[in-house]
Amino acid sequence: MSAADPQTPAPDIVRCAYVELVVTDLGASRAFYVDLLGLHITREEPGALYLRTLEEFIHHNLVLRLGPVPALAVAAFRVRTPADVDAAQAYYTALGCRTERRREGFVAGIGDSVRVEDPLGFPYEFFYEAAHVQRLTRRYDLASAGELVRLDHVNLVTAEVARGRDYLEGLGFRVSEDIRDSAGTTYAVWMHRTQTVHDIALTGGAGPRLHHIAFATHEKHNILHICDKMGALRISARIERGPGRHGVSNAFYLYILDPDGHRVEIYTQDYYTGDPDNPVVSWDVHDNQRRDWWGNPVVPSWYTEASPVLDLAGQPRPLHILAGASEQSIAVGADGFSYTRDDSGRGFKLGEQL
Amino acid sequence: MSAADPQTPAPDIVRCAYVELVVTDLGASRAFYVDLLGLHITREEPGALYLRTLEEFIHHNLVLRLGPVPALAVAAFRVRTPADVDAAQAYYTALGCRTERRREGFVAGIGDSVRVEDPLGFPYEFFYEAAHVQRLTRRYDLASAGELVRLDHVNLVTAEVARGRDYLEGLGFRVSEDIRDSAGTTYAVWMHRTQTVHDIALTGGAGPRLHHIAFATHEKHNILHICDKMGALRISARIERGPGRHGVSNAFYLYILDPDGHRVEIYTQDYYTGDPDNPVVSWDVHDNQRRDWWGNPVVPSWYTEASPVLDLAGQPRPLHILAGASEQSIAVGADGFSYTRDDSGRGFKLGEQL
Amino acid sequence: MSAADPQTPAPDIVRCAYVELVVTDLGASRAFYVDLLGLHITREEPGALYLRTLEEFIHHNLVLRLGPVPALAVAAFRVRTPADVDAAQAYYTALGCRTERRREGFVAGIGDSVRVEDPLGFPYEFFYEAAHVQRLTRRYDLASAGELVRLDHVNLVTAEVARGRDYLEGLGFRVSEDIRDSAGTTYAVWMHRTQTVHDIALTGGAGPRLHHIAFATHEKHNILHICDKMGALRISARIERGPGRHGVSNAFYLYILDPDGHRVEIYTQDYYTGDPDNPVVSWDVHDNQRRDWWGNPVVPSWYTEASPVLDLAGQPRPLHILAGASEQSIAVGADGFSYTRDDSGRGFKLGEQL
Amino acid sequence: MSAADPQTPAPDIVRCAYVELVVTDLGASRAFYVDLLGLHITREEPGALYLRTLEEFIHHNLVLRLGPVPALAVAAFRVRTPADVDAAQAYYTALGCRTERRREGFVAGIGDSVRVEDPLGFPYEFFYEAAHVQRLTRRYDLASAGELVRLDHVNLVTAEVARGRDYLEGLGFRVSEDIRDSAGTTYAVWMHRTQTVHDIALTGGAGPRLHHIAFATHEKHNILHICDKMGALRISARIERGPGRHGVSNAFYLYILDPDGHRVEIYTQDYYTGDPDNPVVSWDVHDNQRRDWWGNPVVPSWYTEASPVLDLAGQPRPLHILAGASEQSIAVGADGFSYTRDDSGRGFKLGEQL
Repeated sequence: MSAADPQTPAPDIVRCAYVELVVTDLGASRAFYVDLLGLHITREEPGALYLRTLEEFIHHNLVLRLGPVPALAVAAFRVRTPADVDAAQAYYTALGCRTERRREGFVAGIGDSVRVEDPLGFPYEFFYEAAHVQRLTRRYDLASAGELVRLDHVNLVTAEVARGRDYLEGLGFRVSEDIRDSAGTTYAVWMHRTQTVHDIALTGGAGPRLHHIAFATHEKHNILHICDKMGALRISARIERGPGRHGVSNAFYLYILDPDGHRVEIYTQDYYTGDPDNPVVSWDVHDNQRRDWWGNPVVPSWYTEASPVLDLAGQPRPLHILAGASEQSIAVGADGFSYTRDDSGRGFKLGEQL
Repeated sequence: MSAADPQTPAPDIVRCAYVELVVTDLGASRAFYVDLLGLHITREEPGALYLRTLEEFIHHNLVLRLGPVPALAVAAFRVRTPADVDAAQAYYTALGCRTERRREGFVAGIGDSVRVEDPLGFPYEFFYEAAHVQRLTRRYDLASAGELVRLDHVNLVTAEVARGRDYLEGLGFRVSEDIRDSAGTTYAVWMHRTQTVHDIALTGGAGPRLHHIAFATHEKHNILHICDKMGALRISARIERGPGRHGVSNAFYLYILDPDGHRVEIYTQDYYTGDPDNPVVSWDVHDNQRRDWWGNPVVPSWYTEASPVLDLAGQPRPLHILAGASEQSIAVGADGFSYTRDDSGRGFKLGEQL
Repeated sequence: MSAADPQTPAPDIVRCAYVELVVTDLGASRAFYVDLLGLHITREEPGALYLRTLEEFIHHNLVLRLGPVPALAVAAFRVRTPADVDAAQAYYTALGCRTERRREGFVAGIGDSVRVEDPLGFPYEFFYEAAHVQRLTRRYDLASAGELVRLDHVNLVTAEVARGRDYLEGLGFRVSEDIRDSAGTTYAVWMHRTQTVHDIALTGGAGPRLHHIAFATHEKHNILHICDKMGALRISARIERGPGRHGVSNAFYLYILDPDGHRVEIYTQDYYTGDPDNPVVSWDVHDNQRRDWWGNPVVPSWYTEASPVLDLAGQPRPLHILAGASEQSIAVGADGFSYTRDDSGRGFKLGEQL
Repeated sequence: MSAADPQTPAPDIVRCAYVELVVTDLGASRAFYVDLLGLHITREEPGALYLRTLEEFIHHNLVLRLGPVPALAVAAFRVRTPADVDAAQAYYTALGCRTERRREGFVAGIGDSVRVEDPLGFPYEFFYEAAHVQRLTRRYDLASAGELVRLDHVNLVTAEVARGRDYLEGLGFRVSEDIRDSAGTTYAVWMHRTQTVHDIALTGGAGPRLHHIAFATHEKHNILHICDKMGALRISARIERGPGRHGVSNAFYLYILDPDGHRVEIYTQDYYTGDPDNPVVSWDVHDNQRRDWWGNPVVPSWYTEASPVLDLAGQPRPLHILAGASEQSIAVGADGFSYTRDDSGRGFKLGEQL
């Protein structure tokens, strides 16, 4: 894609700060996000629930809004200054994207904001103003055995990974890791503003769709406890994949499904990426340890299922089908679970880091 | 002491199964044992609370009974068969000890039992019959971040450690570790029936008194969470000692104080002692790592404070003062915190293990 | 099967103490058990390697012996007294089993022993005399991030689970858990002498074969580290199943394959079973959480692959095929990975525990 | 102090990247940093050892240089661009500080650098160019049970905390937490460039001196292992304070002493501070949980002992004595260990966070 007008500087994005999901049964969602996962309630109102992680100090990390179709309503990014909201609006306007500005904010607890339909079809929000709430960091009396401490990232499915990478680099995101093949196809890419592996990942597939949102825990045993608890509640069928160690990002992970099928990752211990020359790690799509360092297979649903995303009018976006080869078809054999390990004996090498 | 009549065989003791403590404010005790430590309530009745750990399947591990003076009412041991209750009664009768038998049990959930005043002045109960309750092992939905999974042991203060060791060996307990000096004085001894380091420890001092009861967790982070939670509740002054790694037992530990000053240890990961020739580990009283493997000092209160124990009539037992040197006076210097590390360079050696 | 002559008392078995495996490449086995898993070398001799876990005090837990065919040479049980070796010999002789007695022991570090071919065709050894070696419990300077601290159990494949259960009960083992169906078939059974869930498990299938040997770690992160390390060594294909939480036993587990295909389980945190009335947990074979509490599928190889066992002449035993239904065919659908979750909504209930 | 010339912009500092320590016995230092702590050797040369943490990708995090007096030679900060080295030189020149520029770098692996004597008397280096080395993040085969993954921060003792805070704010550091009293005295302050609680902390006392350097681990058990290992090596006397939970920073911590008495902190799990309005947490100097959330006492040596720092000529800097009250005298009673808990019942409140 063409870059934004060089006269229009990108906003200074701080982090992925909250996500608004449409859910079809608030009671069921509350059981999942509050009773099971232990997110803390900041605000309840008819038709919506505002939740935050233990270490958050702004109003919320997750808004659950009742609606007819499960979907991602918005991924909201905090910017560095109030003026960066203006910059975001100008930037997307220059890109030819639809934008909507609300000085009073779109949701409770958040002030002046702009929402946009980005070039890939995703709904983003940019805001600076946010109500501060009690940061529960030291409230160990409220912390459960599987406590979630931060919202870490969103992972988005797009048919245009390479284009999306260029666009997000223009917006100031930097690549930490990617999955490629020797022919030059990029299957997925991890990009960050914070000093972690990613705030946004792009996964190739029919899109735009939301692949997952991810929350961080302090330690690995916190994630294991969530599995144990789901077993005790006899909802183990909602454990989709993991727990395991990612190759990409090196994080310990788990994927679970909320009552509407929204995928939630629980994630811990990726690494510092804050240096300007942080080495990019490129993985060979044929490397069986790229998605799971232990070589455990990726279940097919993880490749194929994702949540719709809404446009600014609240309508689900139509899907664009991936034109080239999919990672799943490349990396997984006909039986759905075979490995494509290179048995030539030379093994796989992590991407150039020097 | 003279051994029991050889014609009177010792009962076959399985484990230390529950403890009955007298507390002066049941509400305060409930806040400590239930709200803070997460013990599970089996039964409430006027003046008493029955609690159990996550993995217990008999009725309770702890009875809290309202009374005028904080004290140990009884340490109760499970025996292998109903006939072992008879054996226990006969055994202590032969020892000349006061006993009391109740076919209907002394507390809810426990059947035919005998309570005794043992030769050291401690109140013991022996029982086989116990109501079974739901074992919560897999109820991870009920498990807190600092979950207690088993009652591990009791630690008793006596002025007669050597005599007590002989008496408990006669009762079938085996020594796993002890603290001695080169002159032959034994300062403390750890003795077991289960395949752990101890079910009973004897600590030298003015006695009979209860030094502490101990609950086990699965992992070390569970214990750290209890500390964090006590900090959050601003009751850190009730953290008396630790967390740390014991030299003796090799367990990771924490000592906290309940609202009446009863000391509770949280304990994890000692080792298997079930072989008939399990090596006894003897520690030099001058070895600064015997009580804390990291060399952290033992606070004086840990040596001096303990709970009264009751006789079978419910009266606090008078104390016998330790005749010989105390471990504290031997091991701790005048300022209350000095080390008595041997600086000759030869270091300390673990006791004979071969 | 008919029980042993009631005039012939069973030996008092303490625990499963060591295993002797035949391997085809000692260097490769050493890389696996010493370099990867961190077992400690007690003795090396031409054609054999003697290894022990961190907390062991007898000579070894594992003998690796060079031979032409990978196999289990013996599973060795420690007995309580020297006379129990005589008792074991008499017991198996009364059962009509082949036995061989060696006063000097069959392997280094072990004295007077008897080896037997048991009624199910497995080679067992019974011994009391064992050389003591340094117990490395407190040698944290030698402990790796995935340290193995004890040999926990052996799991044996037999075509005769029900018969085997009766026979082992006669030998003094007690059942802690099993997997059954409503028609009364027992698919697998866990039996113990120590106060853990098992020292021996029997798994239904073509046998006699060795399903796996299991070592214990202190905490769950130790097991995760072994996975991470296998990923780093690019031998993730040797991670066969897990890590995960067992339904049966409640332990956290991992199955990996040694260079000869011998399956090794890494295992932690089952529960205390030492009470005489410890509740037996029976699992419905259709309960999808019985083998993995999180519902993750069991890979087919885990059901089908196992190691040969040798007779006392060192020859592999011929296999008996399972007559009835296999757990795999009952519990796994046609595609090899489907769940057989009961979707009637009533869920599955843990077996009677009261 | 007067701020820098507003015409002279501050360099864009990325992080505290490495520290150069003078040690008196390289063999002893190597035993401590490599054998005990597991740092990885990048380079050895006569008189110097270059070490890095597991997740570092630049040449080193620690240079140990043989010299006559144990001291901090330099704390080196990475800047965002090569031009920021010029900016740093100009900035300190404008402040009237001595600077020294070396295009080829002062140490191996680092290119164009400037070293300065900062207004508080500390030796800082600023550099951009650094050789990249293998990032060992996924080399779990090299990771020990107490693995250090990042250099986290330096803590500096100064007699001028308030002045230092202003100066470092001018340099672009932001305050995350501090310790104050109601009269307005600041006893210590934590300041960051990365999105953590601090890259530099200032502690009030006779200075300039180095209080400690800090390395991060992934999890708390890694820190506990280091304690266990020091116990096994019988160097527990080098465990100065902890392990514990900090009030300030919320991190889990341990302080140990290297063979020259340089203090090293092992640290994990502080929190995200990257938002522009990250709430500052101010602690009351009388709050007994500020330094240890569990209320464990701070040993006097932790307040009084620190390492000399060198000037650019390699000479130890003379000390300035703290003019006002010391935190130790305010917070600690006459016996050196008493608490100064406020017993009025109102408790302590964390500082304003909103």
